Amino acid sequence: MNRGIDLNCDLGEVSYYKLSPVEKNIFKNITSANIACGFHAGDPLTMLKMVVLCKEYGVQVGAHPGYPDPMGFGRREMEISPEELNTYLLYQWGALDYIARFIGVKVKHIKLHGAFYNKVAKDELLSREVFRVIDRIDKNLILVAPCASVMYQLAKECGIRVAEEVFADRAYSRNGMLVPRSKPGAVIDKPQQVVERVLSIVRGEITADDGYKLEVNADTICLHGDTGGAVELAGIIKNSLEKEGIPLVPLDNLI
Amino acid sequence: MNRGIDLNCDLGEVSYYKLSPVEKNIFKNITSANIACGFHAGDPLTMLKMVVLCKEYGVQVGAHPGYPDPMGFGRREMEISPEELNTYLLYQWGALDYIARFIGVKVKHIKLHGAFYNKVAKDELLSREVFRVIDRIDKNLILVAPCASVMYQLAKECGIRVAEEVFADRAYSRNGMLVPRSKPGAVIDKPQQVVERVLSIVRGEITADDGYKLEVNADTICLHGDTGGAVELAGIIKNSLEKEGIPLVPLDNLI
Amino acid sequence: MNRGIDLNCDLGEVSYYKLSPVEKNIFKNITSANIACGFHAGDPLTMLKMVVLCKEYGVQVGAHPGYPDPMGFGRREMEISPEELNTYLLYQWGALDYIARFIGVKVKHIKLHGAFYNKVAKDELLSREVFRVIDRIDKNLILVAPCASVMYQLAKECGIRVAEEVFADRAYSRNGMLVPRSKPGAVIDKPQQVVERVLSIVRGEITADDGYKLEVNADTICLHGDTGGAVELAGIIKNSLEKEGIPLVPLDNLI
Amino acid sequence: MNRGIDLNCDLGEVSYYKLSPVEKNIFKNITSANIACGFHAGDPLTMLKMVVLCKEYGVQVGAHPGYPDPMGFGRREMEISPEELNTYLLYQWGALDYIARFIGVKVKHIKLHGAFYNKVAKDELLSREVFRVIDRIDKNLILVAPCASVMYQLAKECGIRVAEEVFADRAYSRNGMLVPRSKPGAVIDKPQQVVERVLSIVRGEITADDGYKLEVNADTICLHGDTGGAVELAGIIKNSLEKEGIPLVPLDNLI
Repeated sequence: MNRGIDLNCDLGEVSYYKLSPVEKNIFKNITSANIACGFHAGDPLTMLKMVVLCKEYGVQVGAHPGYPDPMGFGRREMEISPEELNTYLLYQWGALDYIARFIGVKVKHIKLHGAFYNKVAKDELLSREVFRVIDRIDKNLILVAPCASVMYQLAKECGIRVAEEVFADRAYSRNGMLVPRSKPGAVIDKPQQVVERVLSIVRGEITADDGYKLEVNADTICLHGDTGGAVELAGIIKNSLEKEGIPLVPLDNLI
Repeated sequence: MNRGIDLNCDLGEVSYYKLSPVEKNIFKNITSANIACGFHAGDPLTMLKMVVLCKEYGVQVGAHPGYPDPMGFGRREMEISPEELNTYLLYQWGALDYIARFIGVKVKHIKLHGAFYNKVAKDELLSREVFRVIDRIDKNLILVAPCASVMYQLAKECGIRVAEEVFADRAYSRNGMLVPRSKPGAVIDKPQQVVERVLSIVRGEITADDGYKLEVNADTICLHGDTGGAVELAGIIKNSLEKEGIPLVPLDNLI
Repeated sequence: MNRGIDLNCDLGEVSYYKLSPVEKNIFKNITSANIACGFHAGDPLTMLKMVVLCKEYGVQVGAHPGYPDPMGFGRREMEISPEELNTYLLYQWGALDYIARFIGVKVKHIKLHGAFYNKVAKDELLSREVFRVIDRIDKNLILVAPCASVMYQLAKECGIRVAEEVFADRAYSRNGMLVPRSKPGAVIDKPQQVVERVLSIVRGEITADDGYKLEVNADTICLHGDTGGAVELAGIIKNSLEKEGIPLVPLDNLI
Repeated sequence: MNRGIDLNCDLGEVSYYKLSPVEKNIFKNITSANIACGFHAGDPLTMLKMVVLCKEYGVQVGAHPGYPDPMGFGRREMEISPEELNTYLLYQWGALDYIARFIGVKVKHIKLHGAFYNKVAKDELLSREVFRVIDRIDKNLILVAPCASVMYQLAKECGIRVAEEVFADRAYSRNGMLVPRSKPGAVIDKPQQVVERVLSIVRGEITADDGYKLEVNADTICLHGDTGGAVELAGIIKNSLEKEGIPLVPLDNLI
């Protein structure tokens, strides 16, 4: 039998006062939640709400730290020193972990957000700083890294628990990087295409935007939670995977 | 011999880029630091810097969480629900504790800031929420409460480790409350008067603004770190106490 | 023929990255927009987008300044001095007005948000401060005040251009105040009830939550833009008013 | 007689609650103030206070807009689109101008802050966006640009009122750019060296960090206000200039 795959979603990326039913209903179809920690989005009450939903639905709690750039939603590049990276990670992870522990659960994985994710994933020096933080705080933490990235390779070598991520709803370039959101076709929004992408992922090969075939080896598939149809899409993905005999399994049971 | 007393200071309440030598030099004369956690003031780099100085000088690390009101420096009253109180405490405490653990130390006490401190100190319901947070996260944490406050009495009854605080540089009213900063004479800024106040505190009786004598039983004395002469003042206080045979002892060794 | 009535909506109260089609589609059915100015919600790009839509649809641009409390969405009470009130108003109004002028339009009205609106509306001293700001910056500005409030009465006496507002989707108490959001029934969300309320408003009498009849004299009706059905609701309201022979007219043509 | 020179200072770059006497005392020795507008630093009350001091001392009011990056003090590079640049400028300028107009003065110049200043100064596209904003809002506004920068040259060609700025307390590279703060010797802090630099500036030639001679043609000299000795330094500069027969003249009378 297939070892299974994790389905993760970035959540809590709105103000508490703008939470919609989507943010609640998607929990029944995913296995891991990456919770925004107040820098690029989110706030303490939203974090609490997300953790409570994780506990209720048996979804794994993860931190989703971003740049301190709410106006840019953490999507634009910022110059950042290793010391800033360290403290931004620690600050956001610690904040979420204490909220989670109050509810009786634990932060089990971490996935950087947006420009922070893209920058660190290809930077050896910054990747090592992330490992240093994990190493000192909780060696059991799972780091989510882009499939085939510098960060992933290095994490493997350094003995960090690391998961390879592929996006269900984003186009890839031939070099294995995400097509930037500023380009047309960067986001896949037709349900049928998303399902096809998911099935390609579990079969180990996806097609880049120029037709090139990329080999992939995903531990976790990311679905963005901020589109109108995200709940239905998550349900469709879940069903498609189960029909293929691939169970949805949280990262902690996979890595 | 006297059991000693703790001398605490609120620190890291400026942007990293505006840190002055005062913020560093005061460490040699105090035993506990209450570090701002990014809500009313402070930021991750400043928090790291303060923790590093604590470690270097053997000063006890404490969290100094405030209202999410940087424009008002956390000094003005805000309506706040028990759930907001909980998450604001957890968020700020967790953020600082992870930074501290990265440096190899631990947050050992917590002292609320400004209007947050004043509000919770006289409110039974909110005080109990603070205890609930401490109880679930770290029963060893010491809570700093205003001398003779509702929060102090209740903490004692509930088995919380709690320290009574008196201010070296603030006037008190007959009812044991601080004279609000908006009133003349609220802040004591003459060194000689501060020393006299400190000696009164350790002798167990201070004089309110109307001449009334208040009995006090302080475990820790607070000196504000943001005045020009704070470093010298801290040195003078330390010397005066030592001359009286009263050693400066961090809270963790007192409570 | 009836002089008409204005239909206003609070808009731009989300991050630019979370704008939904609702925020665009509602413009065709309203006559005035109150645009969040970055304190309780909103940001410069969102403000620009809202102003551009106002220009495109011929909707009047208004400022919607709030408390500097993004975590609380400007809905919780904060202590605020007259000087803080003045500078918060000036800051937010000026910011929006410069963005509007860049697009070739002007801020023509101002409506305070949430707890700021509720507090000032019943406070004579703070109301006079608002008038002072308007008087020094732009005597032509229209102030939107709650129907029958202290602020409304006083504005009339002081020669301020002022509009009386009634909410289409909020319950009222016998004393003419909004039922707080924390109480059940505070928000009216059934379309039929909203339409009935709107027709009552234009007939000059609404029913309070205890059945008491309140006389009202509305210049503008507020519909909240952040509910899922807001676009349709605005269309239904517009049609109902037109069927009654009541044209929708922006505030600047009414007051 | 010499036409004179302007002496400008970046001010209001701290929280209202951390304003020091320096921020007040320096006003008597400068002719223009660049006031932080709440993005990289500053807040509405601080802005009001700075404007009031400008009026009292006859100092010209200028806006000092920065990146929306309080944690980085606006000193680190951020990716920014032309539309973001426009709205950030308009937002901050409008906010300050309304506060100034309330006090009875006007914003007469604008000087970008930190990384924002450095980035736009060498970028033709972004410089033109700044001109477009000035052109639409107030053609009389004076733009402060680094001496000999792309922005300066282009502003001259486009008919923008522009002033060339040289720093009294920063080292320059052979290419006319500031030596980055991260390098040793970037900040000149010895009073005698600052005075020598000022005299070089008014004589039209300064020495780069490698000994190379740079021709300069300054309209305004910048002194940073956040060092302990800034007040005295400003006084010494003022005296040195007057001894040379060079009057201090605000930008509006020079350009």
